[in-house]
Amino acid sequence: MKIAVDAMGGDFAPKEIVAGAILAAKRYDCEIVLVGDQTQIQKELDKNYPEWRKSTISIHHASDVVGMGEHPGVAVRRKKDSSIVVATRLVKEGKCDAVLSAGNTGAAAASALFILGRIKGIDRPSIATPIPTGKGSVTLLLDSGANVDCKPKHLCQSALMGSIYAKCMLGLENPAVGLLNIGEEATKGNEQAQATYPMLKSMKTINFKGNAEGRDVPTGQFDVVVCDGFVGNVVLKFAEGLAKTLVSLAKEAINKGGILAKLGALMLMPALKKLGKDIDVSEYGGAPLLGVNGCCIISHGSSNAKAICSAIRQASEFVQKDVITQIRDNIDKEEIWSHDTEVK
Amino acid sequence: MKIAVDAMGGDFAPKEIVAGAILAAKRYDCEIVLVGDQTQIQKELDKNYPEWRKSTISIHHASDVVGMGEHPGVAVRRKKDSSIVVATRLVKEGKCDAVLSAGNTGAAAASALFILGRIKGIDRPSIATPIPTGKGSVTLLLDSGANVDCKPKHLCQSALMGSIYAKCMLGLENPAVGLLNIGEEATKGNEQAQATYPMLKSMKTINFKGNAEGRDVPTGQFDVVVCDGFVGNVVLKFAEGLAKTLVSLAKEAINKGGILAKLGALMLMPALKKLGKDIDVSEYGGAPLLGVNGCCIISHGSSNAKAICSAIRQASEFVQKDVITQIRDNIDKEEIWSHDTEVK
Repeated sequence: MKIAVDAMGGDFAPKEIVAGAILAAKRYDCEIVLVGDQTQIQKELDKNYPEWRKSTISIHHASDVVGMGEHPGVAVRRKKDSSIVVATRLVKEGKCDAVLSAGNTGAAAASALFILGRIKGIDRPSIATPIPTGKGSVTLLLDSGANVDCKPKHLCQSALMGSIYAKCMLGLENPAVGLLNIGEEATKGNEQAQATYPMLKSMKTINFKGNAEGRDVPTGQFDVVVCDGFVGNVVLKFAEGLAKTLVSLAKEAINKGGILAKLGALMLMPALKKLGKDIDVSEYGGAPLLGVNGCCIISHGSSNAKAICSAIRQASEFVQKDVITQIRDNIDKEEIWSHDTEVK
Repeated sequence: MKIAVDAMGGDFAPKEIVAGAILAAKRYDCEIVLVGDQTQIQKELDKNYPEWRKSTISIHHASDVVGMGEHPGVAVRRKKDSSIVVATRLVKEGKCDAVLSAGNTGAAAASALFILGRIKGIDRPSIATPIPTGKGSVTLLLDSGANVDCKPKHLCQSALMGSIYAKCMLGLENPAVGLLNIGEEATKGNEQAQATYPMLKSMKTINFKGNAEGRDVPTGQFDVVVCDGFVGNVVLKFAEGLAKTLVSLAKEAINKGGILAKLGALMLMPALKKLGKDIDVSEYGGAPLLGVNGCCIISHGSSNAKAICSAIRQASEFVQKDVITQIRDNIDKEEIWSHDTEVK
C-alpha cells in the first residue's frame, strides 16, 4: 500500500502535512510518498523525524505548486510538475495506490478527473464531505463542490456512490439516503429536486428515505444526503462560517463577562473540550472524490497533522476495501441512467 | 395605521399571537385587527387584557385555518375563509395597511401574491430573512423560500428590493449587496450565478460588492445577500438545525461533565444570556415578503409574543416609510429587466 501525499497543498503545508505523514508512518502499515519540493520536505523530515530514511516515508520531487486561489482547470493543465499533478500521476502510473491533498480542492478534483478518468457509468465525480452530527456519527454530504450544475442522474450517481462509501468505510449496513430539499413531500422543491425524487425512489441499490430538509442534516437523521455541488458548497461554507462566528462571539461574551464568566468558562472547559473531540470530524479523514478511477482524498485546507494522518489511514482503507470496484458493480445493477429527465 | 394579524397561524397560536398583539397595542400607536376564531381570540384577550375593548385591538372573525403542512396554493384557493386569506383581503380592500402571519409561510406568500398582486416590474416576490451576524447587525438573505427556480433577473429584483428594505428599515445608507456563490471571482459558480453577476454589476440602484461565499454570511460582510429560494431555504434551515444541535450537544456535555462543569455553566450563564440577546433577531421582526402590492410580514412559526410584537412594529414602520413606493421608483430606474440571459 502506497499513498501519494501532496506535501505542498494546504494552509499549513508542508509543515503539518509532513508531520501528519510521520504520525501515519509510525501508526499504520503503509508507504507514504511525500510529493513536492524536495528541500523543504527533507528539512521538515530531518527536523521532526531524523530516522525517516529507515521508515516507510519517501520523497518524490515536484518543482511547482498550485496556489489556493488559482483556477483549477488552467493550473492543472499548465503546471505539469505541480505537486498535485505529479502525485495524481503516480496513481495513474500504478506507482501509488491513492492520492491525498489538502490544497486547492478544484485542482485536486481536476487532476483526478483528467489524469485518472471517470469510472464507467459515472458522468461526473462528486465530493463526499463528512459532517458531524448530534448523534456522534457523520452524515455524508455530496456533492459538496465538484459539479455546480447537476442533472437528476448526477444526483442519483452521487446517491449510489455515497451509499457505497458509507457501507464500506463507515460500516453502515443500509445507509439512509436523503435528497436535500425544502420540504418533506415528494412534490416539494425546484425542478431538479422534483425530477430527482422519483429516480432515487426507483433505485435498487440504495435505501432512499425521501427528502432531507436543511435542518435534518446536522441532526444525523440521514447517513447520506445528496444535492448539487453549488448548494452543497454554499451550505458547508455557511455552516463553517456560522460555527466560527458563534465560537468567536462566545469568547467575546466570556471576555466581557467579568471574572465570574471567565472562571465559569475555565471550569466548563474540560466538558467542552470533550464535546469538541466528539464532533471533530478530522478522525474521519478528508472528503473522498468519488467517481474517478482511483482513490483521491481531498482534505480541508486548514488540515493539521492529525487530520492528515487520519486521511492517510482513510486512503489506505479505501484501497483495501476496494470501494471503486463496489461502485462499478452497483452502477451495473441500476437501470435508471438512460432515462434521465431533462431539467430546464 | 391598522395591522391585520393572522391570530391562528404559528406553533403557539392563538396564545402567543394574541399576547404579542397586546404588547404592541400597549407600546405602539397602531390599530391591530386579530383575524381568526372569534371565541378563541376573545378568550385569550379577556384573560390577559380585560380592558382590551378600550384598546386599539379588535377582532375580525374567520372560520377556517390553513395548517402548517397544507399545500399553500391549494389551501389558499379552497379555504376562502381562513384567517390568512381573510387578513390579506383586509389589506386588499383598504381596511388594513399590512398583514402579518406566523403560520404556513407558503400560504401567507400565496395569499399575498393572489390577493394583493405583484408590484409592476417585479416578476416574483421574494422573502427577505434577517440573519444575525457576528457584528451585532443582520444580513438580509433573499430569496429564502418564495421562488425555488429563479432566473438571473429574479435575483436582480431581489437585490433591488433587499437593498431598498435595508435602506428604509435598517437605516443603512448604501447597503452592500452580495451574490451567494461558491467563490469570490466573477467567473465562479453555476450557470445561474455566472449570468447574474454581470447583471447585478450593471445595476445603478444597488451597491453590488461581488460574490458572497457561504462563510461570509454569518460574519456580516454583506448587508443583503441574494440567492434563489431553494438555496436560501436550505441554507437557513441548515443553520437553524446546526445551531439547535450545537446547543443541545453543549447541554449534554454540561450534564455529563459533573459538578464542576455544571457550576461553570451556571457562572457563565449571564454572559451567554447577554450574547443570546445580542444575536436574537426577533426584535427585527419577521421576514417581509417583498414585491407584492402591500405589506406582508411572515414571522417564524415558533414566534413568541415578543417576536409578534416586534413584527407588528416592523409592519407599521414598513407602511410609514412607504417601502413599496421606493421599490416602484427604483424598478423604473433600472434598464436591465428586458435583456435577461436565458439559463438552461
